[in-house]
Amino acid sequence: MVGYMNREAWEKTKKTGKVHYYSRSRGRLWLKGEESGHFQEVKQAFIDCDHDTLLLQVKQLGGGACHLGYRSCFFRKKKGSNWKVVAKRAFKPEEVYKKG
Amino acid sequence: MVGYMNREAWEKTKKTGKVHYYSRSRGRLWLKGEESGHFQEVKQAFIDCDHDTLLLQVKQLGGGACHLGYRSCFFRKKKGSNWKVVAKRAFKPEEVYKKG
Repeated sequence: MVGYMNREAWEKTKKTGKVHYYSRSRGRLWLKGEESGHFQEVKQAFIDCDHDTLLLQVKQLGGGACHLGYRSCFFRKKKGSNWKVVAKRAFKPEEVYKKG
Repeated sequence: MVGYMNREAWEKTKKTGKVHYYSRSRGRLWLKGEESGHFQEVKQAFIDCDHDTLLLQVKQLGGGACHLGYRSCFFRKKKGSNWKVVAKRAFKPEEVYKKG
């Protein structure tokens, strides 16, 4: 998955070992898994050449990172001019994300 | 590597099979490899759940994607509180990027 981090998100990630993002749409810090329990435990971290992107290898709890129930958010592959689902659901999002 | 694409960059990528980005700092379309010859040939493409990120598997020509001479831009790994170079140079950038 790809997510946005601000400074505070990265500091909390380092301190807790669990990946935090900053949600620009919600305007707040976001601990991945805070609702689903699908936390991401940092195993290794890499930074890119111009120091504006992190690549984190994580232990993904709960079977998947994607809020649609897939292991990866990149579950659609280009086939000709279409995007085709090429993965199986790892969990049922309606059981994990309980609204209200 | 991570790069930004606009609509035109993606259209040109699909049409040519070579990855194009849009450089926001330079304000123009950018064919990866146009200066270095290190083109990226698209092998597979995936799109994420909310359709705002592409994951491209490419054949990287010239030994590396990174302008600093590494195969990957993510050649620095976190060790304690430091970032340590953990890859070897794949090419000499001063020979590939000739200025002027």
